[in-house]
Amino acid sequence: MAVCMNSRWLRKSVLDMTAYVPGEQPRQAGVIKLNANENPYAPSPRVLAAIRREIGRISLYPESTSRGVREIAARLYRVAAAQVMVTNGSDEMLRILFQACVDAGDEVMAFTPSYTYYRTLADIQGARYRELPFTDDYRLPAALPLGGARLVFLPNPNAPSGTLFDLGEIARICRAARRGLVVIDEAYIDFADADASALPLLKHFPNLVVTRTLSKSYALAGLRIGLGFAAREIMMQLEKVRDYYNVDRLAQVAAAAALGDQAWLRRHMNHIAQTRERLSRELTALGAHVWPSAANFVLARFSAPPAAEIYRRLKRRGILVRYFAAPRLRDCLRITVGTDAQIDILLAALAKILPNKRRQKNRLR
Amino acid sequence: MAVCMNSRWLRKSVLDMTAYVPGEQPRQAGVIKLNANENPYAPSPRVLAAIRREIGRISLYPESTSRGVREIAARLYRVAAAQVMVTNGSDEMLRILFQACVDAGDEVMAFTPSYTYYRTLADIQGARYRELPFTDDYRLPAALPLGGARLVFLPNPNAPSGTLFDLGEIARICRAARRGLVVIDEAYIDFADADASALPLLKHFPNLVVTRTLSKSYALAGLRIGLGFAAREIMMQLEKVRDYYNVDRLAQVAAAAALGDQAWLRRHMNHIAQTRERLSRELTALGAHVWPSAANFVLARFSAPPAAEIYRRLKRRGILVRYFAAPRLRDCLRITVGTDAQIDILLAALAKILPNKRRQKNRLR
Repeated sequence: MAVCMNSRWLRKSVLDMTAYVPGEQPRQAGVIKLNANENPYAPSPRVLAAIRREIGRISLYPESTSRGVREIAARLYRVAAAQVMVTNGSDEMLRILFQACVDAGDEVMAFTPSYTYYRTLADIQGARYRELPFTDDYRLPAALPLGGARLVFLPNPNAPSGTLFDLGEIARICRAARRGLVVIDEAYIDFADADASALPLLKHFPNLVVTRTLSKSYALAGLRIGLGFAAREIMMQLEKVRDYYNVDRLAQVAAAAALGDQAWLRRHMNHIAQTRERLSRELTALGAHVWPSAANFVLARFSAPPAAEIYRRLKRRGILVRYFAAPRLRDCLRITVGTDAQIDILLAALAKILPNKRRQKNRLR
Repeated sequence: MAVCMNSRWLRKSVLDMTAYVPGEQPRQAGVIKLNANENPYAPSPRVLAAIRREIGRISLYPESTSRGVREIAARLYRVAAAQVMVTNGSDEMLRILFQACVDAGDEVMAFTPSYTYYRTLADIQGARYRELPFTDDYRLPAALPLGGARLVFLPNPNAPSGTLFDLGEIARICRAARRGLVVIDEAYIDFADADASALPLLKHFPNLVVTRTLSKSYALAGLRIGLGFAAREIMMQLEKVRDYYNVDRLAQVAAAAALGDQAWLRRHMNHIAQTRERLSRELTALGAHVWPSAANFVLARFSAPPAAEIYRRLKRRGILVRYFAAPRLRDCLRITVGTDAQIDILLAALAKILPNKRRQKNRLR
């Protein structure tokens, strides 16, 4: 790769880092896409109607603070509108947190394996990134040496494991992070029980930040809408770092319409949770180890053939799942909960790929 | 403002800075909006059709690199697709440049008065921001002490003056900026002559970056689409800093459709240029000093009443223009070129507000 003489224009931290690689987006139609935790169902019809109504106004700048969305989110989640930020996907909220809180050389921590983009953002900012490994069954480690971190990240439910942490555990993290903000990344929280969110803890912990996305539960990955929640005084400062027209007009009206249709959300969350439980049972019956998941995907460990080979053979059959080459995950696949029909096709394909299906004892259990 | 104990979570550079304040977005309908340099005409019908076709796919993540848009832009502007980045407004491109090139304490320069968001971005990054004032008639200063800057910003045409700089002047800046990138912010270039763009200079100056936006000329301010152009090796590094799903599906298809309809662009650019020339003539006849503009706005200096008062009195009549409280601009207004009907209404209102209209000699000339 030619870094050459032009490298002198760039920061060393940027030259030294590697870029994040997102899940594949196949160009061809007809692929069963179980690799990026998208929602397999269409979004609420109210979202589509709201976008159609707004198309005539796209020549004008959007409202800079996404006020309409913040007001709806505030009512829904029982916080003040000034505690809410709407962002271009929750990735933008994560990036804003780095720019607002982390100086070069500062320490940033994340429980891992989880979302690897935290490391990318730390690299951009020139921060020291430290991983805190989950136990083998994806629980928090016994010790929480978080005292030096400016930011601490925990996805809840975690990806790729699907593990849900309870509010007592999150409170413990907030107390242990004495010098920094604790970011609970609730990208998948809508798939878990209604009382699982850390939002009520905002009252008790001034260093708590909660991030959400409408990409997964609301089936709006293509529109890039994230939400951030924090104490007013924190949010006032984060606001300075936000690109001031960060969320476009169509995304704003879509977000407002989506949040306004909670009946759609409940119906689809219930359905996906049922499909997830069936998928977990069937994968277990096929000999995989499946961790309990509160999200719209499951992490499954296979004894044979190697997970990378299963991934490739599924791909040849037009089924995309997510394979991570990382040491702790290389015998696993992360599989998004698709429609029931998609899951039937996946399970039939796996039954052909896996040896001695349903009869073999899982040696790794 | 309560910075209080929570301030300890934030970077000092962020706590110390003030936020950027964008132009007002009135909530009520019927306001004549000449304050944010939006295009008063509807975008190409192809854009609206492309958005309607894409609505059914918003549950899936967008293509991460906006490949379709980059390929069209590459053909249109005669560069390689790898030299193009598509961003969430050109503001995102500017922010990426700061994150990729500027360490805390580094020097950043901008010719001023121009886009004040450069300073905000410098503040976020903890950079030292230095202004290089234009001459009284908004030409480049004789000396260009750019040797220490990591980034140098020049809008071309400049805002708020409308001044167009020629390629010889831009080449001179690229040579003088020995240690940094020169960012030519071409947000308004489509309103100028076709050969005004610095894009052909990319071949000659490895430290040149050009930014564009579809907000103004293509009438897509509500969708947030920016374009960045640089040498391949530079772009490869900037790519690491880009949020990887930064441009949503609807914005991507809209951008592709807009760039694909150059007949629409030429027709509207010609019309707006004609209206601009008429606006300049009439303002001059009303006693204002108007700088030559190659953009979709004019900067007009008024001798009396004070510009702030003219701004307020126009606002009371439902006409919004842009007033800047900055020392050098406080006797000026920046007025967007609206439709011919909007400009008629503006001129009629000004004729009532300004004293001895058309007969008074402009004392400031």
